[in-house]
Amino acid sequence: MTDPCLPGLQAAEWLNTDRPPGPDDLRGKVVAVEAFQMLCPGCVSHGLPQAQRIAQTFRREDVAVIGLHAVFEHHAAMTPVSLAAFLHEYRIGFPVAVDQPGPAALPLTMRNWGLEGTPTLLLFDRQGRMRARHLGQVADMAVGAEIMALVMEPPA
Amino acid sequence: MTDPCLPGLQAAEWLNTDRPPGPDDLRGKVVAVEAFQMLCPGCVSHGLPQAQRIAQTFRREDVAVIGLHAVFEHHAAMTPVSLAAFLHEYRIGFPVAVDQPGPAALPLTMRNWGLEGTPTLLLFDRQGRMRARHLGQVADMAVGAEIMALVMEPPA
Amino acid sequence: MTDPCLPGLQAAEWLNTDRPPGPDDLRGKVVAVEAFQMLCPGCVSHGLPQAQRIAQTFRREDVAVIGLHAVFEHHAAMTPVSLAAFLHEYRIGFPVAVDQPGPAALPLTMRNWGLEGTPTLLLFDRQGRMRARHLGQVADMAVGAEIMALVMEPPA
Amino acid sequence: MTDPCLPGLQAAEWLNTDRPPGPDDLRGKVVAVEAFQMLCPGCVSHGLPQAQRIAQTFRREDVAVIGLHAVFEHHAAMTPVSLAAFLHEYRIGFPVAVDQPGPAALPLTMRNWGLEGTPTLLLFDRQGRMRARHLGQVADMAVGAEIMALVMEPPA
Repeated sequence: MTDPCLPGLQAAEWLNTDRPPGPDDLRGKVVAVEAFQMLCPGCVSHGLPQAQRIAQTFRREDVAVIGLHAVFEHHAAMTPVSLAAFLHEYRIGFPVAVDQPGPAALPLTMRNWGLEGTPTLLLFDRQGRMRARHLGQVADMAVGAEIMALVMEPPA
Repeated sequence: MTDPCLPGLQAAEWLNTDRPPGPDDLRGKVVAVEAFQMLCPGCVSHGLPQAQRIAQTFRREDVAVIGLHAVFEHHAAMTPVSLAAFLHEYRIGFPVAVDQPGPAALPLTMRNWGLEGTPTLLLFDRQGRMRARHLGQVADMAVGAEIMALVMEPPA
Repeated sequence: MTDPCLPGLQAAEWLNTDRPPGPDDLRGKVVAVEAFQMLCPGCVSHGLPQAQRIAQTFRREDVAVIGLHAVFEHHAAMTPVSLAAFLHEYRIGFPVAVDQPGPAALPLTMRNWGLEGTPTLLLFDRQGRMRARHLGQVADMAVGAEIMALVMEPPA
Repeated sequence: MTDPCLPGLQAAEWLNTDRPPGPDDLRGKVVAVEAFQMLCPGCVSHGLPQAQRIAQTFRREDVAVIGLHAVFEHHAAMTPVSLAAFLHEYRIGFPVAVDQPGPAALPLTMRNWGLEGTPTLLLFDRQGRMRARHLGQVADMAVGAEIMALVMEPPA
């Protein structure tokens, strides 16, 4: 079953939060999802720090930031136990969903959302529709502009 | 006499353009003005590269970028001749106004706009009203968001 | 039993090499040891890239570079399985010793060498004597100078 | 007439010093000369900061650092008046020689030393012989090693 607020999201478990983010947390907000792997160098140097800057730049009432640990390689090396230590050491404070393993290497949310690798930054509008999916590096200024455009869209 | 599109701007001359940007170039657009001095280290390492990224990130129909060479110290060291070589070497392509020298060290636009140093990034909305004035370093993501918010404002 | 070439080194196992570096590999060379943990942000951003630059800058006949995975926290999160994936993803090619776990949190080589954290860069001279032990960030230029000073020391 | 300590150096004037560095300042030392132009972006971002790190890393008794303002283009834009303001704003403290203009665009020291552009880092050994001439970017670790190798050379 996928998430009611973020259709397609299938989390095996959540870290950095007592309970999965629900409608009270997400409904009506722009949501930025950072899909990453803890041993992916580009995620560590670029994707995750950028997600932290998104959380610092925008108001919580407007934008929610969520991590998705989307492991599609080295599965035994990136278990939830390792991930928890990683999040602690890198001071990552936003909720992180562990993508549900699937029958093949690719976990289910990655498959549902058509992700081709990590890091990928996904943006969902206030109606929960996926509006952007950036694989690799995107410049901060473009990300800031893109998110603000979604924040300022008139309500449906 | 100050500029009809950017009230308060007093240019002694313009570089990187055949004629001063006029209503056809600026009216109805958001305008980002980077006030700098060519020998100010923070302008060279931060302010001017950020202004170049603004010009690359936003559409020309929405956002105009202009430099203001606002010399308030070492006047003899930063003449228009030196400035022209500087703009060439640093590949700065947007129009640059040389701020009109005044009776004191501070040039006239700096005084009119209440600028306290360089670099300063100023943002004007589509109606030509000054909406932001950032002295020193501002993060790219915040600048991208702030400009997009002005771009998306409903017309007056 | 500690290492014959690097007194005090106690490796539980080695990665990135078929056999532990022995006298043929180390004797008479300056040895740079980078003590790190795979989930230590300063090791990933500073210590390990610097160790890679040491390996690229100096001749193999003069300087050997070795990693020491010295885990003193989050032990369950940084197992050899995770370490192997980490080394692969970060393209780290030099031999890495896994520090021998001890009765307490601190592994044995860390204790033997008096290490207080990670990253620590240790330098051993051509006679195998520890000559420097830098905790945290050291500038590349100083490291280059310090290693060359050991390389150029007249033989005992 | 070229310099007695640095054969080939022809200075029109010196900045950041009361008198030209003479035998008392240079004899028996390794000398690092940073040839630069104040409006050369690579000099500002790379060459000059590296020269400052050389001055901070090595002992004054061992290594002297000297700048050479070697203007071969935009001559009117990079006069000594502009250079003085530049050195002040960028907090460059080592002595800087203004390369003697010649009959053509290339100043005399550049011609004498066979320089092909800026930034160029030149290294002279304790006997005043040129031992290295690096055009463009050189890594800090390599520079640190190279200078230390000259510092440690046995006296002639």
